[in-house]
Amino acid sequence: MINVGIAGASGYTGVELVKLISNHPKAKLCAVTSNSYKGKSLTDIFPSMRGFDNLICEDLDIKSLSQRIDIIFLALPHKVSMEHVPTLLEHKIKVIDLSADYRFADAKAYESAYQTHTSKHLLQKSVYGLSEIYRDRIKASNLVGNPGCYPTSILLPLLPLLKEGLVRPDDIISDSKSGVSGAGRSLSPSTHFCEANESFNAYKVGNHRHTPEINEILSIHSQQEISITFVPHLLPLTRGMLSTIYVRATNGTSENDIRKTYQSYYGDEPFVRILDKDTYPAISHVKGTNCCDIGFYFNQKTKQIIIVSVIDNLLKGAAGQAVQNMNILFGLTDETGLNSVQGPL
Amino acid sequence: MINVGIAGASGYTGVELVKLISNHPKAKLCAVTSNSYKGKSLTDIFPSMRGFDNLICEDLDIKSLSQRIDIIFLALPHKVSMEHVPTLLEHKIKVIDLSADYRFADAKAYESAYQTHTSKHLLQKSVYGLSEIYRDRIKASNLVGNPGCYPTSILLPLLPLLKEGLVRPDDIISDSKSGVSGAGRSLSPSTHFCEANESFNAYKVGNHRHTPEINEILSIHSQQEISITFVPHLLPLTRGMLSTIYVRATNGTSENDIRKTYQSYYGDEPFVRILDKDTYPAISHVKGTNCCDIGFYFNQKTKQIIIVSVIDNLLKGAAGQAVQNMNILFGLTDETGLNSVQGPL
Amino acid sequence: MINVGIAGASGYTGVELVKLISNHPKAKLCAVTSNSYKGKSLTDIFPSMRGFDNLICEDLDIKSLSQRIDIIFLALPHKVSMEHVPTLLEHKIKVIDLSADYRFADAKAYESAYQTHTSKHLLQKSVYGLSEIYRDRIKASNLVGNPGCYPTSILLPLLPLLKEGLVRPDDIISDSKSGVSGAGRSLSPSTHFCEANESFNAYKVGNHRHTPEINEILSIHSQQEISITFVPHLLPLTRGMLSTIYVRATNGTSENDIRKTYQSYYGDEPFVRILDKDTYPAISHVKGTNCCDIGFYFNQKTKQIIIVSVIDNLLKGAAGQAVQNMNILFGLTDETGLNSVQGPL
Amino acid sequence: MINVGIAGASGYTGVELVKLISNHPKAKLCAVTSNSYKGKSLTDIFPSMRGFDNLICEDLDIKSLSQRIDIIFLALPHKVSMEHVPTLLEHKIKVIDLSADYRFADAKAYESAYQTHTSKHLLQKSVYGLSEIYRDRIKASNLVGNPGCYPTSILLPLLPLLKEGLVRPDDIISDSKSGVSGAGRSLSPSTHFCEANESFNAYKVGNHRHTPEINEILSIHSQQEISITFVPHLLPLTRGMLSTIYVRATNGTSENDIRKTYQSYYGDEPFVRILDKDTYPAISHVKGTNCCDIGFYFNQKTKQIIIVSVIDNLLKGAAGQAVQNMNILFGLTDETGLNSVQGPL
Repeated sequence: MINVGIAGASGYTGVELVKLISNHPKAKLCAVTSNSYKGKSLTDIFPSMRGFDNLICEDLDIKSLSQRIDIIFLALPHKVSMEHVPTLLEHKIKVIDLSADYRFADAKAYESAYQTHTSKHLLQKSVYGLSEIYRDRIKASNLVGNPGCYPTSILLPLLPLLKEGLVRPDDIISDSKSGVSGAGRSLSPSTHFCEANESFNAYKVGNHRHTPEINEILSIHSQQEISITFVPHLLPLTRGMLSTIYVRATNGTSENDIRKTYQSYYGDEPFVRILDKDTYPAISHVKGTNCCDIGFYFNQKTKQIIIVSVIDNLLKGAAGQAVQNMNILFGLTDETGLNSVQGPL
Repeated sequence: MINVGIAGASGYTGVELVKLISNHPKAKLCAVTSNSYKGKSLTDIFPSMRGFDNLICEDLDIKSLSQRIDIIFLALPHKVSMEHVPTLLEHKIKVIDLSADYRFADAKAYESAYQTHTSKHLLQKSVYGLSEIYRDRIKASNLVGNPGCYPTSILLPLLPLLKEGLVRPDDIISDSKSGVSGAGRSLSPSTHFCEANESFNAYKVGNHRHTPEINEILSIHSQQEISITFVPHLLPLTRGMLSTIYVRATNGTSENDIRKTYQSYYGDEPFVRILDKDTYPAISHVKGTNCCDIGFYFNQKTKQIIIVSVIDNLLKGAAGQAVQNMNILFGLTDETGLNSVQGPL
Repeated sequence: MINVGIAGASGYTGVELVKLISNHPKAKLCAVTSNSYKGKSLTDIFPSMRGFDNLICEDLDIKSLSQRIDIIFLALPHKVSMEHVPTLLEHKIKVIDLSADYRFADAKAYESAYQTHTSKHLLQKSVYGLSEIYRDRIKASNLVGNPGCYPTSILLPLLPLLKEGLVRPDDIISDSKSGVSGAGRSLSPSTHFCEANESFNAYKVGNHRHTPEINEILSIHSQQEISITFVPHLLPLTRGMLSTIYVRATNGTSENDIRKTYQSYYGDEPFVRILDKDTYPAISHVKGTNCCDIGFYFNQKTKQIIIVSVIDNLLKGAAGQAVQNMNILFGLTDETGLNSVQGPL
Repeated sequence: MINVGIAGASGYTGVELVKLISNHPKAKLCAVTSNSYKGKSLTDIFPSMRGFDNLICEDLDIKSLSQRIDIIFLALPHKVSMEHVPTLLEHKIKVIDLSADYRFADAKAYESAYQTHTSKHLLQKSVYGLSEIYRDRIKASNLVGNPGCYPTSILLPLLPLLKEGLVRPDDIISDSKSGVSGAGRSLSPSTHFCEANESFNAYKVGNHRHTPEINEILSIHSQQEISITFVPHLLPLTRGMLSTIYVRATNGTSENDIRKTYQSYYGDEPFVRILDKDTYPAISHVKGTNCCDIGFYFNQKTKQIIIVSVIDNLLKGAAGQAVQNMNILFGLTDETGLNSVQGPL
């Protein structure tokens, strides 16, 4: 049994982690922390979370936690994670950090989008937790920087094509759309029901902080500097994310090459599904699951490729992938605790 | 292992049953039938249902089924169920019928709301599948008439108070509100997105077919003819149901009597939760679960009791309670396969 | 031309008033005030409000306003209204107050639900602005206490029946449901998109502040103390309100009596429509209009009457009725500026 | 007074036309036709349309209509329009056709996307009703092919930049998102509430019929063959459309050039608004209006331009622009009947 702690358990990502770990056959939830709800049980905070009356939110006291847990998920804001990670590792607690703090190899890229990094040396040790791509490195790691939701929805479909040289690296656009839960539980005018409901808009056009994260990973895998065009939008729904990605095939690339490459990368993957020709995914197809569904269109004449990918932003885009990474770290199959069947509604 | 068949697997209730049985540790899904999608796999019909490529919708051929299954769930329209149930029982297949056909003890009550009953003799053998109330009879039965969603949300809170004489039987009102999935997958103007979205209305005022079902059960337990006032409404959301019930306490009834009675009936029940004073449930608290949450207000001066109950109409109101009944029938604990933790979103 | 000021123009009710007055053929919007957005134009605050670049939010400086306006709408929180109304009247500015401060005749009733009233003497002069019922008094008044949204949806259908003795005054229940805009523009957990979306709940069961307002008006018109049972609920939609009202007919009352009474009260009213037998209103039928649609069911045997009424909570429930009252005050027909046709979407 | 007929008045576009013409100060609604509801009044069909009890849906009998109307709006399916237009013109009835039948100059382009055109000679006489761009030709025309919703949202922002040579014609992508009302009132699985709600998807990737319409107009204005990449998506909301358009600036183009060009084309236009730098529109900013709001981002380094445009698909994308075209045809200012103020909700 893996003994698990969750820091920041009262946020939307934290509570998804609580749900997944509670339903996990090989993990035991031993501790939860919350700044805002210290001393309260999860059932107090979330009436839907029945049976958690004895799971009381505590302070993030690492010494105390180290007696009880093998691994901690940090569902904390960036910068706050950094304050705890070095000490957690010293206490031999494995860390899966869902903030941006350990996603970057290049501290400068991190610092350009966030703030001064206070434990740069750990960036070399941390692994980017895109499970299907970095599985081998995750296995051997003590510190996983869990990917952002937008990057996950974009990198999973793009990386195989880029690595195999099937698409041009200089003309990549992702038009991405996220449900409101991506903005978290904090109150803000843009997440007020009356403002988000029956509306839709682009935001942070040209300067969303997930852009450098995507660029770094794409650049590493294509061995050249890549700069994608990324525009996020806010959907009037709670969970789910869809990215429509526009790329150009390199000379000689055929539709079949693309399909075969996807098959070779993801044919055995439980959580990535490549759809048949002329079939495209909807958010409802993956809501409540850890899956990423990918459909694509290839225009033979213009060499344009249009890829549509969907994930549940709280699962494959956050808590689900984090648990998948825990499974990998502890030598379990990826699906452990993540394979319950989800219906259409 | 319980070998299970599901008839009508391509409707919203049918597919919820598929989901629950697939996630159930003691049951195996052996056959699914569908009129509209014969020959298609569930994955073809519902892209979210991955891994069901080999589960092909077949005809409801009882002889063939009898070789393979111990129990069948009928997620069929009323009248269609009746055509199959006698033969299913002859072939020693246990039946949990989610239509209205075997919910009534009194054929006349059934016929006044539906149509001529073609197997009246079975009404004496069938058990009304309100699990918490009829558990003992369900255990011994081969035919369960699974309750309607509205009746479940109304009877669970009302029956204990009526049976113990705490409320007056002559003045009961239930103002009930259901999500759109209650209307099923068939297309109709009232379930067109643009009509239901951003709207809300009462329907079938004074003559909804669930009224005689509720009245029969209430009457049996209070040993007098009861006629409730029931008004259903359509909520602009997919899953969930809330009933606000207005009753009058009998002389001498105190708030404490009500709370103690609920405690005595439901204190050990895994799926019914009585909320603390001044606390009321929301649909989001039970969505995705088999639970019924109940809060109540007692006006000492006027003797008015206001009860608010919520369920997920597709689970405790249909497929979830059906699986709970299967568990009871086969001697499993009620929670088997139904106790996964659900988060707030 | 009526010169109009609007105080609190940046709230949802305030901005609806801006919209209505701007579209009004006989009124001119001369001043808007806002605490939070002083110095900003309405177009700055609400990008949808184009053409208001020169309408700058100012302080509520009564002396300055008195040079420019004949009437002011106060879309302010209760208590704040009270601080300004006496001075406004001294400066000969007519007042339509949308807070609760001048809705009550009985200061004690007000004070039990809100706080100490600081201008009790004005309660005798103020008129309750339920336009169809108090039209004559509104005409002659300088101070209108504009009704709450819930009270409007309940009083319009109930008052004619109570005044004519058709229903029993001792057993009145209103189960009411409001869209989220009723909670205003201020941020709160219950109006966060992810919390309200796909959910539904009752709130303030047994103690909502609109209850004494409803009771006072009902009591005045039935010449006895009335205490209704009122339960508000929060709908996952932006605009609209539906009340389902349960009352008992007095002996001898027939369905025809009810219909004739409604006809006599509302047959000539432009904004109240009584629906045909077996027809019930939906929120979508009145959204964007100043109308109240009423359908009813009469159970001859039990004498139960079920009334369903719908309004747009921001229009007939607030800004629309306020403008209707302005029209009455200035001798215009009620419909002036309020009769644009609204489609089904 | 302009005497107006509306054919297909019971669809969502038709009923919006009814609303606009009814609220129009210079037009009179004289006749409505409907296949499905012949003999019924609009109030019967749409309870929200009060006061239309005497407006009875009739057959499209051109001879009879020609006695009563000056102009007809055809809110009919493509192909059906074609069957009536030649005769309508013979009877001297001006036509604004909201189907695709008269949007194309090139019959072959039409026929590749739709079907055989039966009155090709009229394609030379018909004018494409993109009001701001074709105003002069519309003035002199008797037959307007009213643009599709997607084309309107894409062409308004693109045409000025293409005509002035500021963007490259060979690399244009529009990622467009529409509310469900765009799919009309007919029932279909994809517009069932439970399917569309809480979901989002791309559809007709690579082959939507609006693509050739967009291409033809772009090609005419850039004097070369243009083939855009266009991907439509379905939003879980009723009204509104947003297009995110990705283009490349030509050498030497500056951000200021773009802004000045927009200013020169649209600075005096009442219904097109160019937003300030770093500001992007939301669907809620134009819902209920005939406006198109446009924001853009210019990446100096990469020459990428990202344009975000929003319209109400039923107004500027259909009925609103049609009425604007009627105004132009009859020498009225564009805003007549279209300039009522709309609030944020």
